[in-house]
Amino acid sequence: MSALNYLDAELARASFNVEPVRHMLHGGKQHYDNYKKWHKLFDIDLFDTTDDAFLTREDRMRLGVKRALASIDIMKKNKDLLAAHSPVHGEGGLSAGRITGNHSGVSDHFALFVSTIMSQGSPDQVRTWLPKALNLEILGTYAQTELGHGTNVRGLETTATFDPTTDQFTVNMPEITAMKWWPGGLGLLSTHAIIYARLIVKEKDLGYHAFMVQIRDEHHKALPGIEVGDIGPKMGNPALDSGYLYIRNVQIPRFHMFARFQQLSKDGTYTPAPAHLSKIAYMTMMKTRVMLSLGAAYALAKGLTVALRYNAFRKQGFIDSKKGRAGGEMVILDYPVQQWRLVPLIATSWAIAFAGFQLRDILTAFEAGVKAAGKDVSKIDTSMLPELHATSAGLKAFGTEAAINGIEEARRCCGGQGYALSSGIAQHAADYLPAVTYEGDRLPMALQTARALVGVLAGRMKAEGSFAYLKDADDVAFSEAFNLPHLLGVLATCARRAVAAAGQVLMEGRGSGLSADAAWNAAHVPLFTAASIHTQQYMLRCFVKGLDRVPEAARPAFSRLAMLFGLTKLGEISCEFSHMTLAGAKVIDEGVRKLLSDLRPDVVALIESWGISDRQLGSCIARSDGKIYEAVYAWAQRSPLNRPAYVEQLHKETIGKHVNRDLLRQGAAKL
Amino acid sequence: MSALNYLDAELARASFNVEPVRHMLHGGKQHYDNYKKWHKLFDIDLFDTTDDAFLTREDRMRLGVKRALASIDIMKKNKDLLAAHSPVHGEGGLSAGRITGNHSGVSDHFALFVSTIMSQGSPDQVRTWLPKALNLEILGTYAQTELGHGTNVRGLETTATFDPTTDQFTVNMPEITAMKWWPGGLGLLSTHAIIYARLIVKEKDLGYHAFMVQIRDEHHKALPGIEVGDIGPKMGNPALDSGYLYIRNVQIPRFHMFARFQQLSKDGTYTPAPAHLSKIAYMTMMKTRVMLSLGAAYALAKGLTVALRYNAFRKQGFIDSKKGRAGGEMVILDYPVQQWRLVPLIATSWAIAFAGFQLRDILTAFEAGVKAAGKDVSKIDTSMLPELHATSAGLKAFGTEAAINGIEEARRCCGGQGYALSSGIAQHAADYLPAVTYEGDRLPMALQTARALVGVLAGRMKAEGSFAYLKDADDVAFSEAFNLPHLLGVLATCARRAVAAAGQVLMEGRGSGLSADAAWNAAHVPLFTAASIHTQQYMLRCFVKGLDRVPEAARPAFSRLAMLFGLTKLGEISCEFSHMTLAGAKVIDEGVRKLLSDLRPDVVALIESWGISDRQLGSCIARSDGKIYEAVYAWAQRSPLNRPAYVEQLHKETIGKHVNRDLLRQGAAKL
Repeated sequence: MSALNYLDAELARASFNVEPVRHMLHGGKQHYDNYKKWHKLFDIDLFDTTDDAFLTREDRMRLGVKRALASIDIMKKNKDLLAAHSPVHGEGGLSAGRITGNHSGVSDHFALFVSTIMSQGSPDQVRTWLPKALNLEILGTYAQTELGHGTNVRGLETTATFDPTTDQFTVNMPEITAMKWWPGGLGLLSTHAIIYARLIVKEKDLGYHAFMVQIRDEHHKALPGIEVGDIGPKMGNPALDSGYLYIRNVQIPRFHMFARFQQLSKDGTYTPAPAHLSKIAYMTMMKTRVMLSLGAAYALAKGLTVALRYNAFRKQGFIDSKKGRAGGEMVILDYPVQQWRLVPLIATSWAIAFAGFQLRDILTAFEAGVKAAGKDVSKIDTSMLPELHATSAGLKAFGTEAAINGIEEARRCCGGQGYALSSGIAQHAADYLPAVTYEGDRLPMALQTARALVGVLAGRMKAEGSFAYLKDADDVAFSEAFNLPHLLGVLATCARRAVAAAGQVLMEGRGSGLSADAAWNAAHVPLFTAASIHTQQYMLRCFVKGLDRVPEAARPAFSRLAMLFGLTKLGEISCEFSHMTLAGAKVIDEGVRKLLSDLRPDVVALIESWGISDRQLGSCIARSDGKIYEAVYAWAQRSPLNRPAYVEQLHKETIGKHVNRDLLRQGAAKL
Repeated sequence: MSALNYLDAELARASFNVEPVRHMLHGGKQHYDNYKKWHKLFDIDLFDTTDDAFLTREDRMRLGVKRALASIDIMKKNKDLLAAHSPVHGEGGLSAGRITGNHSGVSDHFALFVSTIMSQGSPDQVRTWLPKALNLEILGTYAQTELGHGTNVRGLETTATFDPTTDQFTVNMPEITAMKWWPGGLGLLSTHAIIYARLIVKEKDLGYHAFMVQIRDEHHKALPGIEVGDIGPKMGNPALDSGYLYIRNVQIPRFHMFARFQQLSKDGTYTPAPAHLSKIAYMTMMKTRVMLSLGAAYALAKGLTVALRYNAFRKQGFIDSKKGRAGGEMVILDYPVQQWRLVPLIATSWAIAFAGFQLRDILTAFEAGVKAAGKDVSKIDTSMLPELHATSAGLKAFGTEAAINGIEEARRCCGGQGYALSSGIAQHAADYLPAVTYEGDRLPMALQTARALVGVLAGRMKAEGSFAYLKDADDVAFSEAFNLPHLLGVLATCARRAVAAAGQVLMEGRGSGLSADAAWNAAHVPLFTAASIHTQQYMLRCFVKGLDRVPEAARPAFSRLAMLFGLTKLGEISCEFSHMTLAGAKVIDEGVRKLLSDLRPDVVALIESWGISDRQLGSCIARSDGKIYEAVYAWAQRSPLNRPAYVEQLHKETIGKHVNRDLLRQGAAKL
């Protein structure tokens, strides 16, 4: 055994020190130091998730809620530290959630219920509801999706019918398909729900609106006309009480329709949202998408931290097959094929992150502009919003998908151990799966991006910001002497071709007599492809730009990583758009091989630059102290199925009725 | 509502009847009818898995073992039916396991312990152990993998040291890394284990051998020197007691070394296996791989049956966005993009199946040859075995991988519902994940195929059987007027190029002074690619050949499906090997679009041809009666977390301490 353990040895051989990169990631050393202090507050036994897998779902739910409440206590006691600690990990409970890895209905209360009150409530409503919500006097959820209706919000069946004589709405779900389905926190915890329903006034359908509905009473029993419960276990997120809600003809006061953007008066007069306000509403949505994209980068990095550590620790296969055991075994990360599987994923985690940073910076600047404009909303420059909206949709769609697929590949790179829940990465993979669906499914989100892209083609949208490259005229052909600006030009060329091809299919559809809807549906595949390539080139663009932020010592390694991202993405594009030649494909192959080889000393440092802790990983196979097999063994011994009473009972009830006790008593020698 | 439910309507619009295809799949109508009778025997409540997700792992384990024992009872009582019912679903317990979807240690007892006794035991050993094992007087497991050693069997640390003075072996595991890890049935159930250990005789290491070891006594307690237990929960397979085994200096008699192929005499003289017998041992391994490949086709088809049914049922998105709700909603399977995601996977399930059938037929013929040769083993023609060995390794590697990835994509195609355990497909996806690892991890398996492929190039192996195409000289360039023979030629050309490229990288490695091992490792990526393309073309070859078996009415649809398989696989190959042109890529795109459109009426029939039942699916979202939302709702209501006592307790312990009861008592109107 050498003086350094496997992890320290990997960090020692790297060409750069990870600490300055972590500072960069957190927006400076001061922020990072605050983050470390903040992190320490959660370093208590309550937040140790390693043995969670031994619990029943009932107990995991209970524990999850207790952890969430304890997190809130910590946050309340350390507000200054929380506010100061890091611009990367976002505001509020997000940072605590990321450290504890805990997802309960209480998180959704803050992330969705509280934030909706803030973003959609009128000043009166905010005054009435917000303090109580922040103080947990009421606990709420956000209920939009119905059992029969997800993405198509306009198809919602729940109605809120206004009766001017009582000044109330009647909320009703006519069929079981109208039941609210999925909201976290709804199943067991919430006293209130913000529900989406079609507003009906004087028999006119005014489209979907948000309403505040109390669902449980002071004894936590469902109110009359309301049925509410947990939807049952899912693949992951055992501590999240995803719920269903069935409301039949329940009255709520007019005040409970969210009224920041639109209002309904006592006599039933409806005032729709003014245009400029709906653009600010856009912003909330975009912030959520950017947050989810940064979350995707983090989630992927977390999975990769487990995989890289285990791959740097685990040995398998003789170094010299003739010498056999005497010649020692290979560290599996030293196999080029493992590097080929893992390192492009590290590149992806950083590419998503840099793209997320860029969008976050633009949004921050926009928010500052909104603030500066004050009440004079006409001063707000909203021209970049449509493009930003489209780009953030694509980043959410492809970022979360890349993260899910990457985590799964990282899990498989851990061999059998990646399947055991002691690995941490197995639970992480299962928990993260729905990210590709929630807040906007991958496909419709990607199609939003595509709609803007073909809109630029058709002149309906300006070729500005992240779309500016669409108006460039010069194609860049991939060449042997590739570098980052060149690769960016090549990917941009591919994206332009894919957008043009999708536009062509759309036009042909219309030309052949299809309706606008039918032509759009028929062109989904090329549109989806166009959005995908656009988003890959956008990520590379942001990665290249982000290199400026990277500490100088780490820049060569990060530049190689960006190049690897560009080359592998280019290799995945159909030659219909890349116009790739046989020679070019060989250049990519060789380029990737060379980059992987050059990057080998840095790969662990590149993922450890994320600075994800043992506590956050909750993994036996990624322990920084190297006691990996010991931890896996000790974990197995603690499995509740090993309790002697359980084994005895199981044996008695089942196979004990078959086995031949006499034979077994004789022992091995006599059989 | 139309007269036909969603599923019957889909089957009614198809161009063929599924029943004759099901007969083909089962090897004839008689076999199929027997299968149906057999299936009915398991159609009892005990095997209803729909609510399994509500149980603790402790209870799922208990239930799994009870189901396994009940299956054995059914099998014992209906041996004739079992033997007669189907050549597709294999022999023994496999068929029952497939109907019940139950994987417990008892299954592994039969699949691994019993079969190893049969394949590796000497006549004496078989006589001694087999009847007891078949009768469950002893229950066993197969323990090869160690905590620190998986794929590299030669690296195993466990030793069995022979002492001629006592005529016994001392079995020992020197470190925790030598512990046996993973075997199903080991954790809780087994009385015996077949363990792999390095045989040491007179201080000489004779390599790994199999030994029979009793591990638990008549009270089901671990014997002295032995520690044994469950390794704890995994992502899936909750009823499988994957276990660990730690043996420290335990004596076993010489008789317990498996002695069919090699023997050790009382004085320590070792007789190695004669060459021809090791070739027959090959056969067992190949049969397992072919069984796993057919299992992959079935597993994928099962996931797809859920997805296709739900996609044919679920509506989302207005048909006419202007008319809105009044114009009705789209069945999601009518979106070209959903067809694009799902239908190539249906093609893959059949491609794997036809390849599996072909290999199975060759093995059956070989077995008949072995039988016919009797004791005159020199008469056995073993010339095709190396090639068959390599091809079956590739089919196992890429077949299981395609199945895992395809099931996951099918799951995502079910939207949010695919994440809930009520869907059946969520548990199925988690349970099937390890198939890509067990019995040979994807990578080393693929590399076995690659070793044979470059062996053919180098003249070390004959270009026969599935390798015959490697000696063809003429390249086939993809052309617009593609058909099946043409596509096959194109894929074969791609495979030849990829094999040549991998050989080139290998040679260059050696030329640059690398050792054979190092050059091999450095060439892993191109070797892996070559094995992949070879296997895809092999699957297409078998698919095309298999069309002869398909009932005439279904042949046009199946031919389109084979074409779709070929085109989509071709599209995934790097143009380094496909030499794809821009025009060619467009032809693929358009060809796929046209095929998907032509196949639309048949897609549900193509998957229902597998004939997988509601019972086998255990899914609320794939019910053939169309009561899907009702089932999902009823399932949620049965979730144990909805028990009033649980909700009350959770509330009291957690958020009940925060909520404002006075406020909640006032009710919604007053907030």
